[in-house]
Amino acid sequence: MSQPAESAASYSSQPLLPTISGPDDVKALPLEALPQLAQEIRDEIIQVTSVNGGHVGSNLGVVELCIGLHRVFSTPTDQFVFDVAHQGYVHKLLTGRAGEFFRGLRKTNGASGFLYRSESKHDAFGAGHAGTALSAALGMATARDLRGSAEHVVAVCGDAAFTCGVTLEALNNVVGSTKRLIVVLNDNEWSIAKNVGAIAHYLNRLSTNPTYNKIHHDLERFCTSLPGGHEMHRVYMKWKRETKDFFVESSLFEKFGLRYIGPVDGHDQEKMIKNLEFAKQGDQTVLLHVITKKGKGLDAAIRSPEKFHGASPYDSATGENKKGPAGTPPNYQDVMGKALTKFALADSRIVGITGAMPAGTGLTHLAQGCPRQFFDVGIAEEHAVLFAAGLATKGMRPVCAIYSTFLQRGYDQIIHDVALQNLPVTFCMDRAGLSANDGPTHHGLFDISYLRCIPGVTVMQPKDEDELVDMLHTSLQLDGPGFIRYPRGAGQGTPIKETPATLPVGKAEVVREGTNIMIWALGPMVQDALVIADRLAAEEGLSVGVVNARFAKPIDHTLLHKHATPGSMIVTMEDHVVTGGFGTAVLESLQDCDHKTGLERIGWPDNFVEHGSSVEILRAAHGLSPDDIHQRILHRWRSAKEITI
Amino acid sequence: MSQPAESAASYSSQPLLPTISGPDDVKALPLEALPQLAQEIRDEIIQVTSVNGGHVGSNLGVVELCIGLHRVFSTPTDQFVFDVAHQGYVHKLLTGRAGEFFRGLRKTNGASGFLYRSESKHDAFGAGHAGTALSAALGMATARDLRGSAEHVVAVCGDAAFTCGVTLEALNNVVGSTKRLIVVLNDNEWSIAKNVGAIAHYLNRLSTNPTYNKIHHDLERFCTSLPGGHEMHRVYMKWKRETKDFFVESSLFEKFGLRYIGPVDGHDQEKMIKNLEFAKQGDQTVLLHVITKKGKGLDAAIRSPEKFHGASPYDSATGENKKGPAGTPPNYQDVMGKALTKFALADSRIVGITGAMPAGTGLTHLAQGCPRQFFDVGIAEEHAVLFAAGLATKGMRPVCAIYSTFLQRGYDQIIHDVALQNLPVTFCMDRAGLSANDGPTHHGLFDISYLRCIPGVTVMQPKDEDELVDMLHTSLQLDGPGFIRYPRGAGQGTPIKETPATLPVGKAEVVREGTNIMIWALGPMVQDALVIADRLAAEEGLSVGVVNARFAKPIDHTLLHKHATPGSMIVTMEDHVVTGGFGTAVLESLQDCDHKTGLERIGWPDNFVEHGSSVEILRAAHGLSPDDIHQRILHRWRSAKEITI
Repeated sequence: MSQPAESAASYSSQPLLPTISGPDDVKALPLEALPQLAQEIRDEIIQVTSVNGGHVGSNLGVVELCIGLHRVFSTPTDQFVFDVAHQGYVHKLLTGRAGEFFRGLRKTNGASGFLYRSESKHDAFGAGHAGTALSAALGMATARDLRGSAEHVVAVCGDAAFTCGVTLEALNNVVGSTKRLIVVLNDNEWSIAKNVGAIAHYLNRLSTNPTYNKIHHDLERFCTSLPGGHEMHRVYMKWKRETKDFFVESSLFEKFGLRYIGPVDGHDQEKMIKNLEFAKQGDQTVLLHVITKKGKGLDAAIRSPEKFHGASPYDSATGENKKGPAGTPPNYQDVMGKALTKFALADSRIVGITGAMPAGTGLTHLAQGCPRQFFDVGIAEEHAVLFAAGLATKGMRPVCAIYSTFLQRGYDQIIHDVALQNLPVTFCMDRAGLSANDGPTHHGLFDISYLRCIPGVTVMQPKDEDELVDMLHTSLQLDGPGFIRYPRGAGQGTPIKETPATLPVGKAEVVREGTNIMIWALGPMVQDALVIADRLAAEEGLSVGVVNARFAKPIDHTLLHKHATPGSMIVTMEDHVVTGGFGTAVLESLQDCDHKTGLERIGWPDNFVEHGSSVEILRAAHGLSPDDIHQRILHRWRSAKEITI
Repeated sequence: MSQPAESAASYSSQPLLPTISGPDDVKALPLEALPQLAQEIRDEIIQVTSVNGGHVGSNLGVVELCIGLHRVFSTPTDQFVFDVAHQGYVHKLLTGRAGEFFRGLRKTNGASGFLYRSESKHDAFGAGHAGTALSAALGMATARDLRGSAEHVVAVCGDAAFTCGVTLEALNNVVGSTKRLIVVLNDNEWSIAKNVGAIAHYLNRLSTNPTYNKIHHDLERFCTSLPGGHEMHRVYMKWKRETKDFFVESSLFEKFGLRYIGPVDGHDQEKMIKNLEFAKQGDQTVLLHVITKKGKGLDAAIRSPEKFHGASPYDSATGENKKGPAGTPPNYQDVMGKALTKFALADSRIVGITGAMPAGTGLTHLAQGCPRQFFDVGIAEEHAVLFAAGLATKGMRPVCAIYSTFLQRGYDQIIHDVALQNLPVTFCMDRAGLSANDGPTHHGLFDISYLRCIPGVTVMQPKDEDELVDMLHTSLQLDGPGFIRYPRGAGQGTPIKETPATLPVGKAEVVREGTNIMIWALGPMVQDALVIADRLAAEEGLSVGVVNARFAKPIDHTLLHKHATPGSMIVTMEDHVVTGGFGTAVLESLQDCDHKTGLERIGWPDNFVEHGSSVEILRAAHGLSPDDIHQRILHRWRSAKEITI
């Protein structure tokens, strides 16, 4: 694969990126200027992500592809649907978002790390989860066909998208839905981890098979030699007929009714543009297979693609991650992964399953320490849950480690396959609660509500990383499904006990007694509750107790009803929407027994929460700062007293 | 395809089916007896389903296949995973469930219409939703490999399973998970409606291509001529190598790492057994492609495969459906389908989308009356929702008609693609509430809970079929997503207005005023509430009002708080689980404003509800008979009075 020499990047002594206010400016540049533009874009991405963190590798890989797209097509009339949309940085820089806005990437008031229809008219479809582009683009193309308009719809999918069921469902529907759609398969052999499964293997064969490459070169020669689209198309069709036996039978995508073109070197700007122009011709559904290098332009990112997928701030020279302050506690993820490995080594029934996130979930520890009991199924949450259900019927003890927001993909399997059959599958719901920099596609704010209605499930959240180990240990002994939710990032600094405790299911823990107000807090909210309790005691003279609720289902009705004394008040705190969540479980329990105790439910309000620089900033923006919570409790307490008086 | 002559069915003058108490008895019969057994099984299925209703066509199609499976494999040691499991009747009849239990099919205390691990040790994995078998079987095979045992795992999938994303996710993972798995692809070209999409087209080509058939015949010749499996395998492998160029390149399944065998005539009992024996040999993952005829043995079912998919009771001689009593109101499904067609004809932006259920959802009306605006995407709910989202971004007004229980498959797309982008997609959630004969896999009892936590959605349920049309009309004017839930079957008999009304969002309707108790009822529960109100007035002298709540989100806070007067009481009624449902929305609203009004929430309790002969029987079994509800309201009313006194 050709590497544009760095010297080729010098077209002008003036920087080009600041002159790009939109796609027209990309089109106005001469071809010779594009390597310099590409280099500036790479520099900018490295510069910004090294400070803010973000998706480095995938964006460095699509620079020439995105420049090509904006040379050949015209947004917002034509429409690009970027799968996952974490590779949208280059597109943002080319559509008027360079400068301060982009430098605020993933920060409050800065550009989102993903695409949003509300952020730019050039963003035709938002995303944050993988596999949605082909299906959405098919809807758009169908709408266009029904309306009889002429614009182009281009889906840009990574190879990992083809491990997602929804992409494959869409693939099955292409041929029946539209005659005109362009799919760019951006093949870098990685999802977040190295891709797995038969399709990845197949793509690899496509990319390395010399016969394919020969065909590709023939195609290129045609593209190069012919000026007009129609003529090009005619010759292409002839050549297609001639090579049909090989071609039609060989390509998986042809079986789904798409014309396969490729593989194309995604870093050869000229070839990229020519192939996109070719794909643009004619009324047909085309899949253009583009080979790119994840992390191109940053050696450290090429060496460690998984680390530089969604990177923390790093040193742009060395690629070393910037260290947190000394003494930062270990991440929940690492604690879970290490504990699971220890348990799996002691019990061969225990297996861990991830959907392409071994590092993100901490399951890398299991993959290394106990590889036979580790399964990465690719970005395929439905299969992950069902596969676990199948394992559980044969006496295994599967643990699915899936981010809370991605587990929404396996919702039917949780109900229909796991819970209805009461199978002992443990779900480690990572990133439960706010994922500040990533924003609404990544917050895990709905899981308690969507799980609590399912009969027979156990839903829990540990107050700290040591209790996470206890809960994993406890869940592995349940007769039915267990769900453990915990946040992204560092724990509380609590040392991990040598031997984990088996927690009594449905029992809460009183952390501090109190006579006026009892705060029932879920998860690390226990720490916040203690601070609030201290302040209410100090400033208002109130006796405020704190309960570590531990279980969102079943909740500790007995203890709760003991606390629901006349004249007292209960407060619930959770990192979850307040609608239908843990506080509502408490409310339902109190109401079922006609307790009239005052109750204040603290949680996220009923609207989508944007991305922001930190959890604290977002809490403050939504009325959940420590001071807000203090005031709300006090207000409710005082009104209750007034009513009583 | 050969049809066994009816005369061949006469092996013994005594019936054979009553002698089958388990798989061993199937194995003990001589080959010549099997046509008679097959005929008796068909007769029994037709006899029972003509009275009880049920999945006729798919079961008549798998008689020889299931006999073959039980001849060749030994459950419960070997394990069959039937996809969807509505084709499990034959398997039930062969595993000790013939007689009274099977004759009670789909009735209280009778056999389930699906498979349940709790019903028989021969049922390795339960199901009711499509597409789960391959993934679950892969989990089982992996567990077997990890444990080092030798049993066989056989997944029996319909061709429709391959339109489901989860099957395709599993397919991508076969090669990485196990070296030994048997997949029987039962290809009858139908899911519920005629199959759609590229894979269906591909399978059709496989079945009809003479070259494939030739290969198949070669294979058969080997199978027939060779006594031993090893020799058979050796020859097969040699032949495989020789034909590799054609074979490997041609089969979609080979690309996924499965050996493709077929197509095989699924009604030729001897061939069926030989091919299953062949598939059983060796350590490999095999896909055996079996061609069957949906409805074989019942002419009416062959003529009308969709009607006889899940049939109502019918005349076994003529195939005519038994008529309900005269004057039965039209089904909600038909009312919706007709209204949508009328709206779509008047507004080209309106399109309807179904996941393989045009008849079940009433969308057949749209397919016939306005075919350009109708889309059947196959059993692919994730894609259906996303495809709708894509359409909506381009100004269309898509309506997804999906059963409540199946919409669980599209949950992530509802949150991540539709709600987060606030796209105007309307969801017609058919079969919301209890689906009595079908049971827990088909009840739609969780939708309010799993939707209510999502910001910005509108969730509604009409009190009758006329209001359903109003709600569809209203939802099509919303700026964001609208969800309409309604039950299976006949409406209330309310005439449909000529011009639908636009309902004010979040406003309830007072059906009857009352001063002691206000019953807030959702959907057709309004009718039940009126009856209860009458009885409470007559027997207890209470003034009981009734509210048609209409909206589960947003609820009518203003009216509710008006009703929350001291000394009065509110009752909620919903055909939904009580955990997190509509009643909880009312509870949250009252609590947010510190109303202490008494509240009784009536809904399904927190456990899975079994199948039963009727909704009434199941309600009575779960404490929801009219008398139970009456008593609960009265009890709560009296306790509240005691407390007050």
